[in-house]
Amino acid sequence: MKLSRRDFLLTSGVMVGLMASGKFLHSQAWAYTYPSEFEYAELDLEEVGWEAYRNYFKKWCCSTVLAGLVSQLRKRVGGPWKDFPIDAYRWAHGGLAGWGALCGTMVGAGIVIGLVTKDTDTAEAMVNDLAFFYSYTPLPQYQPRKILKAEIQNMSVAGTPVCHISVGRWMSAEGVAFFTEERAERCARLSADVAMKAAQMLNEWYKNGKKYKPKNRVLYNLLHNGITSQNNCMDCHGANVPNPEETYATLKK
Amino acid sequence: MKLSRRDFLLTSGVMVGLMASGKFLHSQAWAYTYPSEFEYAELDLEEVGWEAYRNYFKKWCCSTVLAGLVSQLRKRVGGPWKDFPIDAYRWAHGGLAGWGALCGTMVGAGIVIGLVTKDTDTAEAMVNDLAFFYSYTPLPQYQPRKILKAEIQNMSVAGTPVCHISVGRWMSAEGVAFFTEERAERCARLSADVAMKAAQMLNEWYKNGKKYKPKNRVLYNLLHNGITSQNNCMDCHGANVPNPEETYATLKK
Repeated sequence: MKLSRRDFLLTSGVMVGLMASGKFLHSQAWAYTYPSEFEYAELDLEEVGWEAYRNYFKKWCCSTVLAGLVSQLRKRVGGPWKDFPIDAYRWAHGGLAGWGALCGTMVGAGIVIGLVTKDTDTAEAMVNDLAFFYSYTPLPQYQPRKILKAEIQNMSVAGTPVCHISVGRWMSAEGVAFFTEERAERCARLSADVAMKAAQMLNEWYKNGKKYKPKNRVLYNLLHNGITSQNNCMDCHGANVPNPEETYATLKK
Repeated sequence: MKLSRRDFLLTSGVMVGLMASGKFLHSQAWAYTYPSEFEYAELDLEEVGWEAYRNYFKKWCCSTVLAGLVSQLRKRVGGPWKDFPIDAYRWAHGGLAGWGALCGTMVGAGIVIGLVTKDTDTAEAMVNDLAFFYSYTPLPQYQPRKILKAEIQNMSVAGTPVCHISVGRWMSAEGVAFFTEERAERCARLSADVAMKAAQMLNEWYKNGKKYKPKNRVLYNLLHNGITSQNNCMDCHGANVPNPEETYATLKK
């Protein structure tokens, strides 16, 4: 876990404080509702996870999270979900076509969240909570009903939704390189975790009369640097970060 | 411009070499076509730019690029574009709800590219070329027909499609903080640039019988570190990177 103690305490403190107070403090100034034909129905989480896991090996992270969420919506809601083009978003894999920026699972989950919530505040709050889950939970936790690629041993805490940091930290924990069956297995399981968490939040919102209680403050108001980022700058940019080239050179192919 | 000389030469060399050879070297192993009801029509670039620019101040980066591209598709193609929920993707602003990861303009452009190309290879190649454009072009270049927010003086080279690096480098060039009219103006103009570049690539593909000639090699095969990332690791992670907190503290509010 490569969060600094200060960052961890800061984040935890904010999370606990806001969960306790139930407050959601970001400005409402630019919030609005919008029309969308896409409706929601309560989803079976285990089925969401399995669909996301098993489709990963062909569709990769973004489209497989969509597969996990949309496969049941096609049956339970129908309508525009029937023709929803799951594969049209595959370019978001690997942090944008392999550029390693934002983990594609977040894009896939965000697309469904945005389509069904129809309110910028709700969508933003849910995506933000999902980013906190992604960044500060040891992952992957999903245990497939049948392992399709490889046995893996380790979980890691990404500290960020940025693809190459997240996957790199897991690779270091597991001691394996990127082009391995183990790494593919990890990303498949993590896709299941993100799809299931998104479905859990959407189920909660749906059962609560389409009202969502945010778990975390929206990040852009947490900033002490006045820029769109987390508060853990030196976690990536600091002089104590291991040299990535040296780190990856030690991993098993 | 904070690219290292080595990175710049590496990238430039690859770009020039591949543009000259016309080769597109990534594996075709997992490429496939997919159905989508969304069709394309040639777009007027100046109109794309203006719609993306003027909508930024309410919709922010991702949805405003969608507004730039979809506003004409609604009129020229109709069909499913008529009900396309531009605002359902606003959560992608600020690199994911303000987390500063992937610039939301890339998500907005990628969504339209993926919906109309219907082929994973074509969508991936186009998104990849757009990421090279974003990362290695001095931006913003768009000159609005009417300035809606502020006069700005500087362009900067992001070196990456990561939001907080891109906007941070421009803020340093301009000498202004994040919550300023100048920074909003920059992101609005950059949104116009990305929307126009995406429309230009889609127009080229459309007029060429829906065939696209990639300009750059897909990044995940360029890797010397074996991870989903660019090759300029030390550009962000190196000991010579200025301390972000100190940098931002010097900027004008």
